[in-house]
Amino acid sequence: MGNTIIEKIIKHNTGAASVKPGDIVTVKVDRVMIHDIFIPFVAEKFEEMGFKKLWAPDKAVLIYDHLVPASQLDDTRHFRIGDAFAARYGMEHVHRSDGICHQLMTEEGYVKPGDVVFGTDSHTTTYGCVGAFSSGIGYTEMASILGTGTMWIKVPETIKVVIEGKLPEDVMSKDIILRLIGDLGADGATYRALEFTGSAVREMTVASRMTIANMAVEAGAKCALFTPDDKTAEYCRIELNDYQKNLEGDKDASYMRTMVYRAEDFVPVMACPSQVDKIRDVSELEGTVIDQVFIGSCTNGRLEDLIAAAQVLKGKRVAGYVKLIVTPASRKIYNEAIACGAIEILAEAGAIITHPGCGLCCGRTGGILSDGERVVATNNRNFLGRMGTSKVEIYLASPRTAAACAVAGRIVRPGGRSL
Amino acid sequence: MGNTIIEKIIKHNTGAASVKPGDIVTVKVDRVMIHDIFIPFVAEKFEEMGFKKLWAPDKAVLIYDHLVPASQLDDTRHFRIGDAFAARYGMEHVHRSDGICHQLMTEEGYVKPGDVVFGTDSHTTTYGCVGAFSSGIGYTEMASILGTGTMWIKVPETIKVVIEGKLPEDVMSKDIILRLIGDLGADGATYRALEFTGSAVREMTVASRMTIANMAVEAGAKCALFTPDDKTAEYCRIELNDYQKNLEGDKDASYMRTMVYRAEDFVPVMACPSQVDKIRDVSELEGTVIDQVFIGSCTNGRLEDLIAAAQVLKGKRVAGYVKLIVTPASRKIYNEAIACGAIEILAEAGAIITHPGCGLCCGRTGGILSDGERVVATNNRNFLGRMGTSKVEIYLASPRTAAACAVAGRIVRPGGRSL
Repeated sequence: MGNTIIEKIIKHNTGAASVKPGDIVTVKVDRVMIHDIFIPFVAEKFEEMGFKKLWAPDKAVLIYDHLVPASQLDDTRHFRIGDAFAARYGMEHVHRSDGICHQLMTEEGYVKPGDVVFGTDSHTTTYGCVGAFSSGIGYTEMASILGTGTMWIKVPETIKVVIEGKLPEDVMSKDIILRLIGDLGADGATYRALEFTGSAVREMTVASRMTIANMAVEAGAKCALFTPDDKTAEYCRIELNDYQKNLEGDKDASYMRTMVYRAEDFVPVMACPSQVDKIRDVSELEGTVIDQVFIGSCTNGRLEDLIAAAQVLKGKRVAGYVKLIVTPASRKIYNEAIACGAIEILAEAGAIITHPGCGLCCGRTGGILSDGERVVATNNRNFLGRMGTSKVEIYLASPRTAAACAVAGRIVRPGGRSL
Repeated sequence: MGNTIIEKIIKHNTGAASVKPGDIVTVKVDRVMIHDIFIPFVAEKFEEMGFKKLWAPDKAVLIYDHLVPASQLDDTRHFRIGDAFAARYGMEHVHRSDGICHQLMTEEGYVKPGDVVFGTDSHTTTYGCVGAFSSGIGYTEMASILGTGTMWIKVPETIKVVIEGKLPEDVMSKDIILRLIGDLGADGATYRALEFTGSAVREMTVASRMTIANMAVEAGAKCALFTPDDKTAEYCRIELNDYQKNLEGDKDASYMRTMVYRAEDFVPVMACPSQVDKIRDVSELEGTVIDQVFIGSCTNGRLEDLIAAAQVLKGKRVAGYVKLIVTPASRKIYNEAIACGAIEILAEAGAIITHPGCGLCCGRTGGILSDGERVVATNNRNFLGRMGTSKVEIYLASPRTAAACAVAGRIVRPGGRSL
């Protein structure tokens, strides 16, 4: 009897001869990520639990991103508590203003294929883009891992998603994950592993896979997994070992469900206010007047996303009344986007370019909206009140679609006639 | 009997044969500036006063800067009211995300030498850098000007400031205006015109003069005036006419006070918490540990300021615990700073680069500080609570000094041994 990817990772990690969905196992944690919002609570719990030292100071990464630069009174208290905790326990990896946690965890090489990783943010599923099992946890669990280096999990069932063929030019991986969430429903993959395969998936960049793994949690998934390949190796700057090379679902593995898509059938879509699974083709929404566009976040703030936006915006201007906020996901991406000219194109088109961080996505700063306003955004959640008041309408879309909407001042298909 | 610059401007504007300090006169307004914070109140007063149209729609400039990008719920209400007002009354000049009002008023050519200009911001004194009489007013007065095109003023007495010689390399014009405010006191020039002259002033760029004119209001000045010269003409992209060429204080003009400085005597200084006139030499403050550095604002967010900072930061890194926030004063400056490589140097040194706007200077976003923290900042006010809680200590300094402090993590002289 074969195994799915998550089963292989758990077997390898625990040394168990076999595992099956539903088993409760204890895994050894390879890496953890704590962000600025949660560090005060993690620190408090850690000491309350009586731990005297970190299980492995080099395996914990502390990242300030939601609150950088600070936009509210007392935000910097989180930095001060984080700095003190890191100094006290000898944490080696602290990023104080380098970008969004999930971007840095993969970009900086903290996560490798086949690793077991936990983070204090729901979108920790992101690292499945390189074939790691990663998931979000609360601060009590994180405090416990920091002391013990272990964590319990229930082995999840796996849903296999197969995408064969070639994607249309106006479709990005964001359109795929939005469509999938629509098909599954916001709770359709709760505590399941999503496993992606097929020729269209193999064609994707690691960055595109990251968008999909990132949003898998919006269907409730515990994790989302892509088989490591040459692109993964290059991205991670490693040679894949035998374990990592073997991280694909076996032919005789047991899947609770298999969903098969033809890549050619995908079209640009949006998640409409205010549910992530309320998916509509962009063509159905055309003409809807908008106030703002946001391109960024751990979902879609990577170089390929900024370049896709720049391709649409080159030589054009953002519509008069629309504000276009662009937030690269990391300093590295920001610097690369300057070097390749994308920032210049976006700035000349009228974009407001902010420092890499979570900013507007988590509703803290950088374009907060008010009653009755409408935003097209590339991030991952359109919940009520996420980016302003509860009377703001958030449409989630790909960077290409978002850029086209910024120019038109209303919802349009990317490359559609309205441009 | 000769005239000071402000007397010449008022005579020219009113057609009066002679004016003297204390006269109440009505001036014809050449241009007005309204920013996002005040537009709702201006709009309300304008309609309450019963006006049906703007006296001259092309002479009013509406600029969104304090709230861009929006960081609080309801910020965008100001934009919506502004947009509606501009549309209703045919205002031609609306800047929705182009930078700080004072920068745009000069940079975009809205203000010419010898003009009479009012704005709804206290730092409207800035336009004296090109020899315009400009001053800040409240929203009721602004509403009245929008309807009538006129404004009353009392002719101010003039304090003449003469700076002869060559400035030391580590001194910027910010050090001069801080020293002057220290010598005058925060109320030492209340309702007076400051008139700057001397070889060091003639040597200054328009940008450097702008820093001085901007902060003149911190000594209470009604306005600050620099004689238009070739640099002014080039900056304004005009040929100076006879009136503009003649805007210098006559030899036999009557000054209430003349202050003479030797340029060589200036040293890098700071305004210490929490009064703008509490001026100390940087050398007296060396070693004071800091948490953050801010380079930006209408006082010091210009290209030469960013370049000065980049010269200090090239190949260096901001100290580990320090956040360096850099905010260019306008989109044009941001683009130029990318083109000349300054942004790249600053980003690589670890700076957090924000969208051009008022941001942190007015305490709205982009680096808000908490109790017990200390910031070295290039803006114009260190009042209690200006950039965070009332227990934040703000030291005002030049961009060169600020950049040096960012590297050292404590207060140091620019180019001093501590670097």
